[in-house]
Amino acid sequence: MRHFSDPAQAHHAPIRELHNGGWMDFAESPARFAALLDALGPGEPARDFGIEPILAVHDPAYVTFLREAHDLWRAAGREGDAMGYVFPVVARRALALDRIDAKIGAFSMDASTPIAAGTWAAAYGGAQSALTALDAVLTGDAASLALCRPPGHHCGADYMGGYCYLNNAAIAARAAQARGVRRIAILDVDYHHGNGTQDIFYDDGEVLFASIHADPKTDFPFYWGHADERGSGQGEGATLNLPLPQGTDWAGYAPALDTALDAVRAHGPDLLIVSYGADTFAEDPISHFRLVREDYTAMGGTIATLDLPTLVVMEGGYAVDALGGNLAAFLRGMDGGRTEPPPAHI
Amino acid sequence: MRHFSDPAQAHHAPIRELHNGGWMDFAESPARFAALLDALGPGEPARDFGIEPILAVHDPAYVTFLREAHDLWRAAGREGDAMGYVFPVVARRALALDRIDAKIGAFSMDASTPIAAGTWAAAYGGAQSALTALDAVLTGDAASLALCRPPGHHCGADYMGGYCYLNNAAIAARAAQARGVRRIAILDVDYHHGNGTQDIFYDDGEVLFASIHADPKTDFPFYWGHADERGSGQGEGATLNLPLPQGTDWAGYAPALDTALDAVRAHGPDLLIVSYGADTFAEDPISHFRLVREDYTAMGGTIATLDLPTLVVMEGGYAVDALGGNLAAFLRGMDGGRTEPPPAHI
Repeated sequence: MRHFSDPAQAHHAPIRELHNGGWMDFAESPARFAALLDALGPGEPARDFGIEPILAVHDPAYVTFLREAHDLWRAAGREGDAMGYVFPVVARRALALDRIDAKIGAFSMDASTPIAAGTWAAAYGGAQSALTALDAVLTGDAASLALCRPPGHHCGADYMGGYCYLNNAAIAARAAQARGVRRIAILDVDYHHGNGTQDIFYDDGEVLFASIHADPKTDFPFYWGHADERGSGQGEGATLNLPLPQGTDWAGYAPALDTALDAVRAHGPDLLIVSYGADTFAEDPISHFRLVREDYTAMGGTIATLDLPTLVVMEGGYAVDALGGNLAAFLRGMDGGRTEPPPAHI
Repeated sequence: MRHFSDPAQAHHAPIRELHNGGWMDFAESPARFAALLDALGPGEPARDFGIEPILAVHDPAYVTFLREAHDLWRAAGREGDAMGYVFPVVARRALALDRIDAKIGAFSMDASTPIAAGTWAAAYGGAQSALTALDAVLTGDAASLALCRPPGHHCGADYMGGYCYLNNAAIAARAAQARGVRRIAILDVDYHHGNGTQDIFYDDGEVLFASIHADPKTDFPFYWGHADERGSGQGEGATLNLPLPQGTDWAGYAPALDTALDAVRAHGPDLLIVSYGADTFAEDPISHFRLVREDYTAMGGTIATLDLPTLVVMEGGYAVDALGGNLAAFLRGMDGGRTEPPPAHI
């Protein structure tokens, strides 16, 4: 399976995030990207498909904000990374706001997604990686991989959150539709619910969003990903949330995966997009499932039974030393076990 | 004018708040309450009207959360004050959440309103102060003052924010209605828009909410208080927002006050509730209007021309050394100038 990335993705480096009442080192570090490249090799460079595919998902005012936010933060005399502290939890609407703090909160769902100097370029590069990998699938590859970083599945059409700025999976899905692929399934196996992706396609019956994740009663993003969220309007029934308790191992995970894949088959898609996060790993420092390396090979193998053109988009995973190996194990499963197992030290 | 307070209001002492990307000392300090008592004397103690008047405004689940939050925070092994970091900016709904961080964000609009050990008792005491002062007006006093602290006007029926936990003005208004006063006007002259009060009465045509405040394009709370917010449903036209630019002095303020008072007269209320904040003061450390001491006497005198039974509820004001004197100057105006001017050193 070919993989794609952009060098700018290495240069998004916020310092800290607000978590449980205090600062912690920003978990979605550049070292994650380096680990992926170390494990898989350099791969192929992303091509530039321009801003239009991004604007097919994201609000223009939000995109303008992402591009300008760090400069506006500096212009306001601020140090460190740009982050919000007030959030429009009721009566949210589009407003022309002047102060940078007002803008940030208007376009955020948390105080854990800082904008640093390299953020826009990295997010843009990641989105182009997804579009390039999509192009590979649409032009003949059975499957391809976008090494997106920062991840994308928590951000909505007009808000960032959960380390995510541009929704790479959603951008690829809309781009596929623009090229004639109508029915799409997005399978999200990151530890955290992909609330942004869900939100973008909540009313859309053509795009199934199926997610297996930690129960939001205990885990980020808390307010979305509950089992009773099933889509609305034309999208009623095209959202499937399978929350699982902390401590879930493969014995608990595999049946949920089967349920999700049944829903994918029933949807009858022409393209599968997998939002892959390795934070389901037992040793992940911020997550609480108990998958081990060989489980990722089993996961990839199970998904491969769908026999669909497949775009894999990288989401989370914070056990940096094992990140590349866990992804490689997953890809080995996707490839039917034809490749060698990754060495244990990555 | 008699004034009322509860000793518990002194014991709410969060350490820090998130502001413009970093920590700052919590501005709404116990010293504010001490300054008010120093300037006005001890006044009379609040009586306890129980939880029912609070539940007439606030969601029971929110009230339970406020009571329990600090204990749950400690039980989760956390130090410092309880505060959220993720916020339900879209598809907000009532959810049964387990983790304390999830609960906090669910009931918050910012990361600047921490819950400390004494927070619930102080907020409860402040609400009882408002209810006691209301009782004084309903039983014959022409006007009375509740020295509420923490303030109340930023919190809604089920969310805290802007240093506010229980909406004292709203609780008093609903209690007045329960005692047969149907038409009420709430005049909010705090520097910041009283978004919580607005939200609580947005659909209610019996309660006029009129607010003069810093333009939310530049000032907290950013997302509410814009001039086009005029109420909805039965409350259409019963919300009046008069945002003013930073730098506004009395020459700019007085015409807005006249406009607000015209709206109060047109509403024809049987009771006036004034949400009084002294953060319009030129030397306020977190605000940007330019009122001086004698302007508060003019403000109080202008409001007194309404000749309505009046409850004054304390909101913000962070120039602690001048806080008591500024309030006293306002009360002097309300009293028709019959009292002596406050000494310059308070």
